[in-house]
Amino acid sequence: MFDDKKTYTTPISSLGEFGLIDRLTRDFSIQNSETVVGIGDDAAVLHFNDEKIVVSSDVLVENVHFNLGYVPLRHLGYKAVVVNLSDIAAMNAVPKQILVNLAVSNRFPVEALEEVYDGIRLACQKYKVDLVGGDTTSSQLGFVISITAIGSAKEHEITQRKGAKDKDLIVVSGDLGAAYMGLQVLEREMITFKSNPNLQPNIEEYTYIVERQLKPEARTDVKTILNELGITPTSMIDVSDGLASELLHLAKHSDLGFHVYEDKLPVDPHVISACDEFKISHTTAVLNGGEDYELLFTIPITEHEKIAKHPDFTIIGYTSEAHKESTLILSGSENHIPLTAQGWNAFVE
Amino acid sequence: MFDDKKTYTTPISSLGEFGLIDRLTRDFSIQNSETVVGIGDDAAVLHFNDEKIVVSSDVLVENVHFNLGYVPLRHLGYKAVVVNLSDIAAMNAVPKQILVNLAVSNRFPVEALEEVYDGIRLACQKYKVDLVGGDTTSSQLGFVISITAIGSAKEHEITQRKGAKDKDLIVVSGDLGAAYMGLQVLEREMITFKSNPNLQPNIEEYTYIVERQLKPEARTDVKTILNELGITPTSMIDVSDGLASELLHLAKHSDLGFHVYEDKLPVDPHVISACDEFKISHTTAVLNGGEDYELLFTIPITEHEKIAKHPDFTIIGYTSEAHKESTLILSGSENHIPLTAQGWNAFVE
Repeated sequence: MFDDKKTYTTPISSLGEFGLIDRLTRDFSIQNSETVVGIGDDAAVLHFNDEKIVVSSDVLVENVHFNLGYVPLRHLGYKAVVVNLSDIAAMNAVPKQILVNLAVSNRFPVEALEEVYDGIRLACQKYKVDLVGGDTTSSQLGFVISITAIGSAKEHEITQRKGAKDKDLIVVSGDLGAAYMGLQVLEREMITFKSNPNLQPNIEEYTYIVERQLKPEARTDVKTILNELGITPTSMIDVSDGLASELLHLAKHSDLGFHVYEDKLPVDPHVISACDEFKISHTTAVLNGGEDYELLFTIPITEHEKIAKHPDFTIIGYTSEAHKESTLILSGSENHIPLTAQGWNAFVE
Repeated sequence: MFDDKKTYTTPISSLGEFGLIDRLTRDFSIQNSETVVGIGDDAAVLHFNDEKIVVSSDVLVENVHFNLGYVPLRHLGYKAVVVNLSDIAAMNAVPKQILVNLAVSNRFPVEALEEVYDGIRLACQKYKVDLVGGDTTSSQLGFVISITAIGSAKEHEITQRKGAKDKDLIVVSGDLGAAYMGLQVLEREMITFKSNPNLQPNIEEYTYIVERQLKPEARTDVKTILNELGITPTSMIDVSDGLASELLHLAKHSDLGFHVYEDKLPVDPHVISACDEFKISHTTAVLNGGEDYELLFTIPITEHEKIAKHPDFTIIGYTSEAHKESTLILSGSENHIPLTAQGWNAFVE
């Protein structure tokens, strides 16, 4: 990972702009009936019958959102897609298409871009989405990947950030804090590797948390599970910037207080042991860590029985109209402390 | 233009990621009934009834596609939108929404980004499109703007690159070569300015061609005009990379030869005089210049009367199944010379 010996040889400029795009996209096939015309014209053509369309766009920048020192190119392509599909899942919609724009330095050979596209294709296959457009161009420095994701849902299914009601239950899928702790391990190992390139990176025992950082998944399965349970969330968001930040988003959009119990936060044992090792409170990792791409949502309290014992979900708190300042309720006490968003800010150096 | 004395003061980091996006997008309003939920959630929600959806994405990179030495930020925002709307127009569709991703260095203060967004807003107003999403983040160096445009059309209206038939007429809107010559003037004046900052730039007499470079327009009016004339093009593309490159795209997709007359190419007198001054053949400027964002399309020869005298269009040639190598027919002769795409390649340094 830290010392990739593969030799790449084909300069991007040897293919030309159109030849490059043809080569990168030749192995993609169309999987959805909603895609009428895919890549290769001025624009793609889509058709969605009577469903609403949901669309979202994100950009990832080298050395801001990822470090190619420890992020394999294939994982970068995969993760860039997942991050965008997660936004579609957070609307309770099903992702169908993506468009990918790359701006890359000439220092990357064609084979490096093919690795990125291998990761993009793997994500397209896993999540059954079609690559329908985009652009690849050079940049003077660094690597920028910008993805737009398109999905669809029936009107009554769509779940926004607003919509939570007083005394709703706050629910989160999966567990939190792992992606952040995986990042701590990767950064530590890269520093070790730089000081002595003969030391092999020691990440085997951290497989779970490192994989959560390098190869996150979008919870597109949550819509299906909730459908089966007969539950429509009242509000929803994905956890990209840390739980505290997302709770405050939902609270603001629904004009309610969101109150969560510290001892209910779902944390994997691997996260707890890594937190102990790095001397980080696992509550901090959960609240401020981000990049887990789990879904955070609210449901009416009447749905409690349906979800309380479901292994994919944890009820972590409740909403309140009476107490609009969102809080963390500390373990073993009734003490409420105000939640503050210390999520990641791309503009602070 | 070359020496902007405005002083900007607000560092991007002072607003935080969400504060910045709120500030940049606060003056945008929704204009289309097809936009159900605009910016501010995990994704936008759109609804198009029974129309097909058309979607395209492009990326512009500082010092590759534009030089902030002579491109005002407002024009950059405007042009970035126009370039994408042009792709939608090239499908014979109507643009409705855009998503904008920016990656910018911290060296840009908030006010600079507001200028970019002023240009984006101006384009949204002129073309009646809604800004429905996107992301703003930092980059280590340079300025990258990635835009996705979404539009719609009835199924029978959509025009692709393929579809031209034998003996169709080849038609282009407006005139060509001006944007390229405007770029020559701007680059010359910037060199002059750098060597002596007291010299004022001399661009007044080049207003038409400089404006075609800095503030191009998307020919979204062509669909309306053709509707009124009762014409449906058989194939269409926009002229972004130079006429020769676009002719070869259409030829390839329709498996025909495209043959155009040198003396029919529409060139503005300002382009001819600038070409004389720069000792560039105006045929070269038209064939290889690019960035005019006119529409190039084919129509059945039976429609000749409808379009022959229309001031917005010029018939420049014909398609041929018998002669599949596309050619330029030289002025005052019957000599055909093969067309080659020398359009711009972002990867050649």
